Amino acid sequence: MTGTMKALRKMQAGPGLEMKEIPIPTIKANEVLIQVHKRAICGTDLHIYKWDEWSQNRLKPPLTTGHEFYGAIVETGHDVHHYHVGELVTAEMHVVCNQCFQCRTGNAHLCENVVILGVDGDGCFADYLTVPEANLWKVPKGIDPEFAAIYDPFGNAVHTVMAGATVGKTFLILGGGPIGIAAVPVCKAAGASMVLVSEVIPFRRELAMKMGADRVIDPLTERPAEIVAALTQGQGVDVVLEMSGHPDAIAQGFRSIRKNGRFSLLGIPSKPITMDFAKDVIFPGVTVQGINGRRMFETWYQMDALLTSGKVDLKPLITHRFKMHDFKAAFDIGLSGNAGKIILE
Amino acid sequence: MTGTMKALRKMQAGPGLEMKEIPIPTIKANEVLIQVHKRAICGTDLHIYKWDEWSQNRLKPPLTTGHEFYGAIVETGHDVHHYHVGELVTAEMHVVCNQCFQCRTGNAHLCENVVILGVDGDGCFADYLTVPEANLWKVPKGIDPEFAAIYDPFGNAVHTVMAGATVGKTFLILGGGPIGIAAVPVCKAAGASMVLVSEVIPFRRELAMKMGADRVIDPLTERPAEIVAALTQGQGVDVVLEMSGHPDAIAQGFRSIRKNGRFSLLGIPSKPITMDFAKDVIFPGVTVQGINGRRMFETWYQMDALLTSGKVDLKPLITHRFKMHDFKAAFDIGLSGNAGKIILE
Amino acid sequence: MTGTMKALRKMQAGPGLEMKEIPIPTIKANEVLIQVHKRAICGTDLHIYKWDEWSQNRLKPPLTTGHEFYGAIVETGHDVHHYHVGELVTAEMHVVCNQCFQCRTGNAHLCENVVILGVDGDGCFADYLTVPEANLWKVPKGIDPEFAAIYDPFGNAVHTVMAGATVGKTFLILGGGPIGIAAVPVCKAAGASMVLVSEVIPFRRELAMKMGADRVIDPLTERPAEIVAALTQGQGVDVVLEMSGHPDAIAQGFRSIRKNGRFSLLGIPSKPITMDFAKDVIFPGVTVQGINGRRMFETWYQMDALLTSGKVDLKPLITHRFKMHDFKAAFDIGLSGNAGKIILE
Amino acid sequence: MTGTMKALRKMQAGPGLEMKEIPIPTIKANEVLIQVHKRAICGTDLHIYKWDEWSQNRLKPPLTTGHEFYGAIVETGHDVHHYHVGELVTAEMHVVCNQCFQCRTGNAHLCENVVILGVDGDGCFADYLTVPEANLWKVPKGIDPEFAAIYDPFGNAVHTVMAGATVGKTFLILGGGPIGIAAVPVCKAAGASMVLVSEVIPFRRELAMKMGADRVIDPLTERPAEIVAALTQGQGVDVVLEMSGHPDAIAQGFRSIRKNGRFSLLGIPSKPITMDFAKDVIFPGVTVQGINGRRMFETWYQMDALLTSGKVDLKPLITHRFKMHDFKAAFDIGLSGNAGKIILE
Repeated sequence: MTGTMKALRKMQAGPGLEMKEIPIPTIKANEVLIQVHKRAICGTDLHIYKWDEWSQNRLKPPLTTGHEFYGAIVETGHDVHHYHVGELVTAEMHVVCNQCFQCRTGNAHLCENVVILGVDGDGCFADYLTVPEANLWKVPKGIDPEFAAIYDPFGNAVHTVMAGATVGKTFLILGGGPIGIAAVPVCKAAGASMVLVSEVIPFRRELAMKMGADRVIDPLTERPAEIVAALTQGQGVDVVLEMSGHPDAIAQGFRSIRKNGRFSLLGIPSKPITMDFAKDVIFPGVTVQGINGRRMFETWYQMDALLTSGKVDLKPLITHRFKMHDFKAAFDIGLSGNAGKIILE
Repeated sequence: MTGTMKALRKMQAGPGLEMKEIPIPTIKANEVLIQVHKRAICGTDLHIYKWDEWSQNRLKPPLTTGHEFYGAIVETGHDVHHYHVGELVTAEMHVVCNQCFQCRTGNAHLCENVVILGVDGDGCFADYLTVPEANLWKVPKGIDPEFAAIYDPFGNAVHTVMAGATVGKTFLILGGGPIGIAAVPVCKAAGASMVLVSEVIPFRRELAMKMGADRVIDPLTERPAEIVAALTQGQGVDVVLEMSGHPDAIAQGFRSIRKNGRFSLLGIPSKPITMDFAKDVIFPGVTVQGINGRRMFETWYQMDALLTSGKVDLKPLITHRFKMHDFKAAFDIGLSGNAGKIILE
Repeated sequence: MTGTMKALRKMQAGPGLEMKEIPIPTIKANEVLIQVHKRAICGTDLHIYKWDEWSQNRLKPPLTTGHEFYGAIVETGHDVHHYHVGELVTAEMHVVCNQCFQCRTGNAHLCENVVILGVDGDGCFADYLTVPEANLWKVPKGIDPEFAAIYDPFGNAVHTVMAGATVGKTFLILGGGPIGIAAVPVCKAAGASMVLVSEVIPFRRELAMKMGADRVIDPLTERPAEIVAALTQGQGVDVVLEMSGHPDAIAQGFRSIRKNGRFSLLGIPSKPITMDFAKDVIFPGVTVQGINGRRMFETWYQMDALLTSGKVDLKPLITHRFKMHDFKAAFDIGLSGNAGKIILE
Repeated sequence: MTGTMKALRKMQAGPGLEMKEIPIPTIKANEVLIQVHKRAICGTDLHIYKWDEWSQNRLKPPLTTGHEFYGAIVETGHDVHHYHVGELVTAEMHVVCNQCFQCRTGNAHLCENVVILGVDGDGCFADYLTVPEANLWKVPKGIDPEFAAIYDPFGNAVHTVMAGATVGKTFLILGGGPIGIAAVPVCKAAGASMVLVSEVIPFRRELAMKMGADRVIDPLTERPAEIVAALTQGQGVDVVLEMSGHPDAIAQGFRSIRKNGRFSLLGIPSKPITMDFAKDVIFPGVTVQGINGRRMFETWYQMDALLTSGKVDLKPLITHRFKMHDFKAAFDIGLSGNAGKIILE
C-alpha cells in the first residue's frame, strides 16, 4: 500500500508530540500492515509525552509512539501464513529475538534483546502500522473493540494476578491506576475471596468500586495495614499486588501481608527504597516477585477466556474517548490522574 | 457425659442398617464429644448399606456409620486446647498417623495408616460422636449448617478441581453425582471459562444446570467428544474431572481432552479398564491424576473462602431432608440416583 | 551449494533403506545447510527400516531418513541472523508452527502441526541436510561430537527425568534401551538417591550398571516389586520411568510405586493395556504423565549443563560405530537389541 | 528418670553462659527424654552468648540453651507410640501449634505460635532434654552421629537450596558460614552445574573449596559480579543463596543474578537495606524469597536421602570438637569465624 498517513510522533528530544503526515510504512516478508481502528494511551506514553528521565535515556526520535491498539490487517508479507487480509487483530508489541535463553525457555516476555514498538520502533498512534506475524493476536468474535485495544495493559494485570495461587485468596492492590483497576475483576474472576484497593485519588477509588473491589482504602486518611488486619482476622492478605511504585505503598504492603504471602511488584519505583528484609521478608517467609510485561502468549489466552466467558467486564475502565487529532486534550486528562483508560479513535 | 443415644449401625455382615440405643461414647484426652445436628449420606454409605464387595472387605461390624456431619462440642478432653464447649464444628474424618512419610510431607490425605471414622471406627450417624482435636474444623459464622454438614464431599470436589490450573480453563465433568455437581460452581468460582457435565440421569443433569453448568450432555443420546469439539474449536477441554468411575465415561474423557490436558480421576471404577496409553496419554502429553480425599487442611480453608465469600452456593445441591429414624426412605432415594445430597436431621 | 550427495532413503513402501546419490538440497531464507559429521540411529529409524504398522501409516516415500546428528553449517539463508558458516550444531528436528496453543504457551514439543525431519520431511542420514534456524542448537565447546549427535534421545531421557521432583528421590526405570540407559546418569546427576533398572537383555543390564545404576533387575527371573520393596523399606519408589512400552513392565511399575508417586510414560505400548485405575492410580494418589519429545528448548539447556559440567558422561552408551555405507550392519545390530547407541560416520 | 544433670544455661540477662547442675527434666505424656550424645553450636547460640539485641528481646532467662543434637531415647511418655527407648534420634526444635493456618497447610516451619527449644524453652546443651514425639527424627543406620547432630543447620541449607529449581543451574552462595558451606555439596548433589562462594574469611573460603565449590571469591579483593559474568557468558547465575545478611553481599548478589533468577534470603541483615527494586527485581523479573527454618519434614527426608546415598559428605564441615565443660573455648573459636561446625561432646 502506498500513500501517506497521519502519525503522532516524537520529532526531537523534549516534551510533547506532533501530528505528522508521513508515508504509510512498507512491510517485510514476515510482517503485516494494519489499519488501526482504536488506540489507547499507556502510562508509558505519558512518560514519553512528559519526556521524563527514563524517556530521555530510552527513546531515539523521530518515532511514532503508541503500543496499545486494535485494527484490521490490510496487507500481508509473503512469509505470513496464519493471518489474512481483513482479520481483526491486536498485538504484543514486544518484538523478541527467539534465540536468547529467556525466549527459548518459555519466558520471551523477559527477552534479552527485546524491541518495543512505540518505544524503540514506530508504534500505533498512526493510521497504519506494521507488526511481525509472530506478534499478532486474533481478536475473538464478540470481544468489544475497545477491550481489544487494551490487551497490553489488561495483560499486565492478568499476568500479575496469575503469577501465583488465586483461588480463595485475599488480595490487596496498591495503586488504582488503569492496571491496578483492571486487576480487580481479574482477581475476582480468578477466585479471589476478597479484593482491597489502596489509592489516593478519589476518582480512581470510585472506579475500583465499580470494577468490583470489596473495599477501597484512602492511604492518606486510613491505615491500610489496620484495615487489612480487621478484615483478615489479623492474618494479613495472601497476596499484595504493587501497582503504584510508591515507597509508602510498598511499606504498607509489607505491613499488610500474611506470612508466606506473595508480594508481586509491577509498579516501577522512581528511586531506591529502604526496607527491612529480616522483618518483612525472611522471618515471615514472604516471596517478592518482579513482574514485567505479559507472558507470550499464555496471558493472551487467559485474556480471551476471561472476556469471552463474560467473567471480566472492562467497560467501566474505559472512561474517555478522543479523536486522534485531539491528542493534547487526551494526554492532559491522562496526566491529571482522573481517568481510567483513554481511547484514541 | 453419660447416658444412651440413638445410632445407625451395621450390626453384622449383610445389607441394611439398624437404629440402636447405645451408650454415649467417652472421650480420650485429645478428643471432643460432639452433639450432631446435621448428617449427610455419602455414596460410601450407600455402598455400606448395600453391603457391596468393597464393604465386605473393609468393614468390621458392629459399627456406627456416617462421616458427614455438623454439630456442637459438648465436652472436651483435657489435652484439647484450641476448641471449647459450645463451638460449632464439622470434621475431617480421616484420622491420620502424623508419622508416616505422607503425613510428614504435607500429604496426610494419603496417610499410610489412616482410620476413617464411620468406616473403620464409629461415625456420625448417631446423636453424639467423638473426634480427635486434630480433625476438627470450626465452622465460620454465616455458613449454612447444611453446607457445613457436607464439607467432606464438597472437599472432594474442591480438591479435584484445585489439583491443577483452573483460571480460564474449560472443564468436562464426567458424572453428575453429588460430588460432580458440587464441582460445577467450584470450577466457575475458580475461574473456569466453561463447564460441561456428562450424566445419564435427567434429574442430575437438571441439577447440574441449576448449579451453573454451561451445558449438560446425555452420553446415552449424545456424543460428548463431538459436543466438546464443537465448543472448543476442535481443541478439546483443558481439564477432565472423572467422577463416575464408569469405563465408557473414562473413554469419552480421553476422546474429549486437549493435548497437554489434565485428567483427574476421583470416581472409583469397579473393575479394570482397557485403555490405549499411546494414543490417549503419551502422544498428547496428558497427565492423569489419582485423587483421593481432601487436602488436610488446605482444601478446608478453600471451602471456607468459597462459601463465606459467596462465590459458591450449595443450596440447590441439597435436595432431600429426613429425620434420622426415617433412614430407610433416605437411603432408598439415595440409591435411586434421583437425588443430590440427602440430609439426616 | 550445488552438486550431489549420498543419502539413505526409503524409496517406496516396504522394509529396508537404500543409499542414493541425490542433489544437495537448497535452503530457504530461514534455513541453513549443514554438512553432517555424525549421525545416530534411533528406535524410530528401526521401525522405519522394518516398515512396521506405524511407519506404514506415517511415512510418505521417497524420503531421506534420520533425525539425530552433529555437523557444521556450510551455508545460511538471508534471513538467518544468529548462526554463521562454520559453526558446529545439532538440531531439534521437530519443526513447529509457532502459532498453535501449545507453541504459544511454552509447550512447542506438543505442537499440533509438527513436522519431523527424517519422518515427515528429509532427514540427516545424508551428507547434507537443511534445518530452519529456529531449530538449531550450537554445540558448546568441549562437548564430545558423538554426544552432540545424540541430543535428541538424550533429550527424551532428560525431559522424562525432569518432569517432576528428582532430588533425593528413588527411581525405577522400566526398559534399558538407549533412552532408558541414558536416563540413569541423568537421574543421578539430578539428585536421585537410588536408580534401579529393569531390563530383559543381559547386554543392556550390563550397560545400565556401567552408566551408574545401583541395581539392575531381570524381570524374567526376578520380581521387580519385591526387589523395590526390599530396597525402599516397603514404600515403593518415588518415580517410575516407563521406557519399554511393554504391558508387563507397566504392570510391574504400578506394583512398585509409592503412594503419591510419579509414573512417567515415554515408551510406546503397541496396543491397549488393561489396568486397575482404582487400585493403581486413585487410591494411592499416583500421577501418570504422558511424555513426548523434549522441551524446546529448556531440555537442551539442561543437556548442555549436564554435559559441560561433567555431571553426565554418555561414553559407555555409544557402543557401535559404522560408516554410513555399512548401514545394513548397523541396523542389524540395532535390531538385535545388543547395542546402546550406534553412530553412522 | 530422677537425679541431676549438667546444663549450659543463661542464668540472667547478660553475656556468657554458666554450667549448672539441675534436675533431669520430667516428660509429659507426649514427650520423650533423650540422653544427649553430641551437640553443635549454632550462630544463634553465639548471638545468645554475646547477648546481642535480638537475644535481649527474645530470651527469658533462666534457660538451658542449644538446639542442635544427637542422642538416645531413655524414657517415653505414655502417649508416645512411634518411638522406643534406645532409639537414636535428633529433632526439629521448632515446637509448632498444629492448628494455625501455616501448620494446617503444610507450612509448619512458619507456624504463627512456634516455640523454639533452646531459645524459648530449655534446649540440648545438657545431659538430657525432653522433646515432643511429633518433633523427633529417627537417625537412619549408617549416618555419622556428628552429621545427625547438625540436621538443624544442614536442614537450613537443604531447604534454601531446594526452594526452587536446581538441576543444571548455576549458584552463587553469599557467605561461607557453616550453613553457606553446607549448601555447597547440597547444590552439587541437587544437580547444580556450578557453585561459587563469596566469603571474606580465608579459612572459610578454603573450607568451601574442600566441600566442592567450583570457585571461591574474596569480595574484599575481587568483584563478584565480574567473576560471575565471566563464568556465565555474561548471563549471571540462575540462583543466589544469600547466607551472610551483609548489605554489600546482597548488593553484589543483585549485580550477579540472571534475568528471571531466584534470590533466596536466609542470612539475617541486622538493619534495613536500600535497594533499587526497578533495576534489580522488576525489570529483570527476579524472585526474592524469604527462607526460614526447614520444611517439616520434607527437608528431613531429603537430608536422610542425601546422606545415606553418600551424595553429600559433611565431614570437612565439622572442624572442632570440645567437651561440654570446655564451652568457653568452643564459643571463642565460634566467635572468631575461623570454624565450620563445632561439636560439644
